[in-house]
Amino acid sequence: MPNAITGQLCVVGLGPGHADLLTEQVKKSIAEATDAFGYFPYVERLSGLAHLRLHASDNREELDRARAALNVAAEGRKVLMLSSGDPGVFAMASAVFEVLEHASPDERQRWSALQIEVQPGITAMLAAAARLGAPLGHDFCTINLSDNLKPAAVIERRIRLAAQADFAMAFYNPCSRSRPEGFVRALKVLREECEPERLICFARNVSRDDETVTVTSLSSAKAEMADMRTLVIVGNRLTRRIGRHVYTPRSYEMPSYA
Amino acid sequence: MPNAITGQLCVVGLGPGHADLLTEQVKKSIAEATDAFGYFPYVERLSGLAHLRLHASDNREELDRARAALNVAAEGRKVLMLSSGDPGVFAMASAVFEVLEHASPDERQRWSALQIEVQPGITAMLAAAARLGAPLGHDFCTINLSDNLKPAAVIERRIRLAAQADFAMAFYNPCSRSRPEGFVRALKVLREECEPERLICFARNVSRDDETVTVTSLSSAKAEMADMRTLVIVGNRLTRRIGRHVYTPRSYEMPSYA
Repeated sequence: MPNAITGQLCVVGLGPGHADLLTEQVKKSIAEATDAFGYFPYVERLSGLAHLRLHASDNREELDRARAALNVAAEGRKVLMLSSGDPGVFAMASAVFEVLEHASPDERQRWSALQIEVQPGITAMLAAAARLGAPLGHDFCTINLSDNLKPAAVIERRIRLAAQADFAMAFYNPCSRSRPEGFVRALKVLREECEPERLICFARNVSRDDETVTVTSLSSAKAEMADMRTLVIVGNRLTRRIGRHVYTPRSYEMPSYA
Repeated sequence: MPNAITGQLCVVGLGPGHADLLTEQVKKSIAEATDAFGYFPYVERLSGLAHLRLHASDNREELDRARAALNVAAEGRKVLMLSSGDPGVFAMASAVFEVLEHASPDERQRWSALQIEVQPGITAMLAAAARLGAPLGHDFCTINLSDNLKPAAVIERRIRLAAQADFAMAFYNPCSRSRPEGFVRALKVLREECEPERLICFARNVSRDDETVTVTSLSSAKAEMADMRTLVIVGNRLTRRIGRHVYTPRSYEMPSYA
């Protein structure tokens, strides 16, 4: 055998939806791959590409999907693991490393020669922020509101401390059909910690045909404004509107607590 | 006059360095533009493009640069404002809106018909995180350590609260020649709040030819490991190594404080 089989697993970000928001790097990886694994709607985005074997699976099957992709890569194939947005932000990259860490001795042996690479993408908060103006132009934090993999008390504590630090905040997965209470809880904490005029922005399906963007105040925000396809951005105390845009100033004056 | 002059200002992100990390959207905007404004090294990246008038300026001249770009756009031209990374993360987008907000009556009139758009890019922390593995795979925050535009006490307070919330952290501008003390202060706060084994990652010039990535523990970290071209990522208490990669698990157990 002249060459050992060295398969590849490339974990890529497809961006928030529009094809123009892919990087050239990810386009090249797609062109060179043999297989693509991912959640149904992400695999669907590559459905016109005849050179790819597509392996779609359901949400919440991330670990099984990662294991299957590693096994196909171990056959010497060039495998893509698809995420929307960026693969490292609440997406598949961590799931792949989790499976690698907890591999059985057999799996560890089988996967040992694989080339594993992560390629970044435009994550939803950057696309939403660009559409809004520049709400993340000063220090900010990024929180997944789903309590699927962490206790709700941790999420509430993080939002409270982030408000006290006066971070702008980007919320992913504000609520889903099965867990509508996540964003309700977040709004409650924000209302305890922030002034009623605080700006809050709802960006749904940014870069897609049915994109909607809504900006309102914390006092006027309603839980129904966010669904599982919405990225929520909460401003810091200085975030303001200028015309149709929202931005957070680069400068920050000493607040009363300092 | 058949058409009113409606100039455009497009604030774009060029990504962290490598041309393959540009989006197709930004490439198209570059192809269609007439002028490009930016800090010298970013303008240099477009120096081969004969169709563009290039307007390079020095760092810390952001507001003058934004004003000049708006004025050229008001002549009916298609103007790019260049940032590296993403324009909305510690870059030019906020500076443009700041100038618009504080425009004189004359400027307001001159700029009123402009089309202003922000186009996202791969910001340094996403490129660094991808190279490392997935250190930002759980809740995280993003802090600019420069005290050029905000008090050092605000930065220290934010790092302390972020550590108490157990966010992973990405630090931009950890230190510059004129202000070497920013990262020294950050390390001091982190050592007060986090365990000595906490992982800390130094990613310098990611995607460029001279890229370097170093992973160490908080107890072994030294201030000299970061310069103005370094993106620093601090893990949360669960961030770990797996082979040559660093990742933060998606799941989070209830910690003792909850």
